[in-house]
Amino acid sequence: MKQSIKQMHTFFNPRSVAIVGATKKINKAGHVIFKNFVENKRRGVFKGEIYPVNPYENSILGFQCYPSVTKIPGELELVVIVVPAKIVPNIMRDVTTKIVKAVVIISSGFSEVGNHELENQIVTVAKKAGIRILGPNCLGVYDSRMGVDMLFLPETRVLTTGDEVIATPRPMPGNIAIVTQSGAFGVAALDYLTGLQIGVSKFVSFGNKCDVNEAEMLHYLLYDEETKVILLYVEDIKSGREFIKVAEKVTKKKPIVALKCGRTEAGARAAASHTGAMAGSDRIYDAAFAQTGIFRAKDMEEFFDVGKALAMQPPAAGKNVAVITDAGGPGVMAVDECELKGLNVKRFSEETVQKFEKLKKAGRLPKFATNLNPVDLTGSVTSKMFELATKIIFEDREIHGIILLGLHHTPALQEDFIDKVAKVASKYDKPIVTCDIGETEMALHTRYRFDKLGIPAYFSPEDAARAMNALVRYGLYLKKNNCLKEYIQNFLKDKRKPQFT
Amino acid sequence: MKQSIKQMHTFFNPRSVAIVGATKKINKAGHVIFKNFVENKRRGVFKGEIYPVNPYENSILGFQCYPSVTKIPGELELVVIVVPAKIVPNIMRDVTTKIVKAVVIISSGFSEVGNHELENQIVTVAKKAGIRILGPNCLGVYDSRMGVDMLFLPETRVLTTGDEVIATPRPMPGNIAIVTQSGAFGVAALDYLTGLQIGVSKFVSFGNKCDVNEAEMLHYLLYDEETKVILLYVEDIKSGREFIKVAEKVTKKKPIVALKCGRTEAGARAAASHTGAMAGSDRIYDAAFAQTGIFRAKDMEEFFDVGKALAMQPPAAGKNVAVITDAGGPGVMAVDECELKGLNVKRFSEETVQKFEKLKKAGRLPKFATNLNPVDLTGSVTSKMFELATKIIFEDREIHGIILLGLHHTPALQEDFIDKVAKVASKYDKPIVTCDIGETEMALHTRYRFDKLGIPAYFSPEDAARAMNALVRYGLYLKKNNCLKEYIQNFLKDKRKPQFT
Repeated sequence: MKQSIKQMHTFFNPRSVAIVGATKKINKAGHVIFKNFVENKRRGVFKGEIYPVNPYENSILGFQCYPSVTKIPGELELVVIVVPAKIVPNIMRDVTTKIVKAVVIISSGFSEVGNHELENQIVTVAKKAGIRILGPNCLGVYDSRMGVDMLFLPETRVLTTGDEVIATPRPMPGNIAIVTQSGAFGVAALDYLTGLQIGVSKFVSFGNKCDVNEAEMLHYLLYDEETKVILLYVEDIKSGREFIKVAEKVTKKKPIVALKCGRTEAGARAAASHTGAMAGSDRIYDAAFAQTGIFRAKDMEEFFDVGKALAMQPPAAGKNVAVITDAGGPGVMAVDECELKGLNVKRFSEETVQKFEKLKKAGRLPKFATNLNPVDLTGSVTSKMFELATKIIFEDREIHGIILLGLHHTPALQEDFIDKVAKVASKYDKPIVTCDIGETEMALHTRYRFDKLGIPAYFSPEDAARAMNALVRYGLYLKKNNCLKEYIQNFLKDKRKPQFT
Repeated sequence: MKQSIKQMHTFFNPRSVAIVGATKKINKAGHVIFKNFVENKRRGVFKGEIYPVNPYENSILGFQCYPSVTKIPGELELVVIVVPAKIVPNIMRDVTTKIVKAVVIISSGFSEVGNHELENQIVTVAKKAGIRILGPNCLGVYDSRMGVDMLFLPETRVLTTGDEVIATPRPMPGNIAIVTQSGAFGVAALDYLTGLQIGVSKFVSFGNKCDVNEAEMLHYLLYDEETKVILLYVEDIKSGREFIKVAEKVTKKKPIVALKCGRTEAGARAAASHTGAMAGSDRIYDAAFAQTGIFRAKDMEEFFDVGKALAMQPPAAGKNVAVITDAGGPGVMAVDECELKGLNVKRFSEETVQKFEKLKKAGRLPKFATNLNPVDLTGSVTSKMFELATKIIFEDREIHGIILLGLHHTPALQEDFIDKVAKVASKYDKPIVTCDIGETEMALHTRYRFDKLGIPAYFSPEDAARAMNALVRYGLYLKKNNCLKEYIQNFLKDKRKPQFT
């Protein structure tokens, strides 16, 4: 492992960590973060040493408390700082007396509110000592596998009714990394993904990025085995050249999905007043993302939907998409969205059409099913019919990806169509995405089961089409760079294809 | 009540109904529909007479069965037909021997599969007898208040695990009417709205519309007191002139949201092969919707989101929108989407800015809050701050609507901010929409509580901005037609403003 990667690794897997500002006061950031480490250590997940630092306490949650970092015996790799901004420079000077590799500064009150001088002070101290800084003004790191959890927002909250409810959920382990400039958006993303049962490999909120920036994070994640897809939320990118260089390297191995707001003039103005940074013309970002093969999401929903698609399915080797449906109207909605995104929903080859006609004559598909693309299996659809149609389309060499709309309301359709379709899909290396419409039990079950089998399911036909579009765009990018085959081989090796349980 | 309206009313509130094709066979359409009426009658919701018609049964579910409609004693207002297409003409001839007002033909197998002759036969018979037909090839009518439920898809389904789950939910009473050409999309819509706890006034699936068409439905709903908003899903409109005439009348009193797919060439081709009807240029639909003040949704999600907004909030009197947020990034996302839709997120008046500055100086708002638009109350936000900011913005005469992003993750924010904001909003006749991001308990609670208090809540900043856009568009349309004031007066009379419970 390269030295620089090793140092970055300290943020996610420290052998020892001090929490400066640890306290007994409930719900204080310094309390929540320290408690997170303590609980994860007791569960055997976090394996490093933990040191609370607070001159006014003797012990916190059973751990001996130190008045200063300088008093901690032995090795210290990582320091998490949760004290008021104005005393952070002093803390940093203490830190340099130990051989510390990395510091996370959670505290706010630096350049984001105009205190550039204060921020410069800590950067100077750290540079001199060879210490890397994440933050300030950030949420730090979350890594469920390593038991590192710097989120200072408690996982649950008690309502006035006395009910305790999940408020800032910790996600389960998964293969999507979240890299975010905004902490607020970061926790919202965790909440969103956790609710949809989508797992996260690593979470990093880098705030003011006075030292470690998005480019370095991407570079680190390139070598992180757990991470297969990177979701990047940025408000500005300062070192553009470095970013492009790294991103070009990463996207050939792992897809990056970016959400960069401030697209309009008023939006850019609002963003500037928020982060203090001039974001520059939005077109420059468009160009940079296009050049580096980063998929730029047009809104929050697409950001998550596309991340899920890329995490579960291989990219498409071309633009020809097939739509299979049991409901005519939603089928047309999917076609519309595909065409608006520049995908082709063209008539199937004569060979494929004839396969359908044969099955119709044999009574194995509904007499009035249409099969020119979309394939409309009508309200008479059965599980077997979905299975047959999916197989025929996967066999069509001219088709690069499938959007399957399986609305569960049709009377003869049994829930086993999900497993049947997933089993067929597992034999091909083309992507498939699905949709069921509805928000009550059977629709939630259908989407959940598809997701579980590795086939991303969406709640509208247009969302499914947008997800397929991202799989096509990424496939075309890899193809242009002669690395599509290698990517798909690695993808299959990961066993990201549907698993039957 | 006009004669024509009275006759249409029979579909929703018949004094007597015969179900031709009623059967004991479980899960058959004729069984499910008959049972729906029986259960609703036993619960005292459906108050009319029920007659099963089936020559092979003596009684079904305890009701005496008749071999033919002609044998039913006394008055008969409505007939629901659920028998194979080829015998429907014979049934129709039986029906004409009674003084029947209306017939719903659920059966498929008519013009949608090329059997135009069969469909013409039944139309000729009905015209001669002065009977109105809904369908064929439709799901008919659902009206929870009247206990009319012709949905032949069972409400629940049993999974292979033995679990019984909701599959095709019946919605609760509400003020949104659904008028749909596609039955499949219709049930999907019910499933979607029910899951989000959005109530429905009336549901009509009109299928092949051999007689009653969308224009007549809109005309009927204009006079339906329960219906405040109409969601219209169409694949084609055949009598364009009649439609425009009626729609112009309706939209001055009640908003109509349309979803018309087949927007692209490939989509139109797919739609044509689905319904058999040539849909015509999509631009003609755009023009017709624009002329009549119908809001055309760009996709399924916008269709529902906009319907919810118009059902809960008054329209905006202009294009100036304010964004209030506790999270910078999501605030910028909302601004971006507003600007992309042509709304103005302009700097507040000096008076408003000064009000904020005063509160900041007094320590009642965070020192680093921004207040030029968006108002960013930062992660230090409290319930009281949201309340103060909302009040200041509502008081600004230049602002026509508010998008409030209340991300619940901020540590000092208590759940009572929802009620506080709703209480302020109830004193003004400007619209407000909200957003919280997340899919776990606290986010679901936040959105649900806002919805319950009459403030539509969305799961992304962009969705909230799109909902506000529809409120602005409808407001501008009403203003242009000099009926905005009257509409808002009626809106307030309905007490659609937040209710505190």
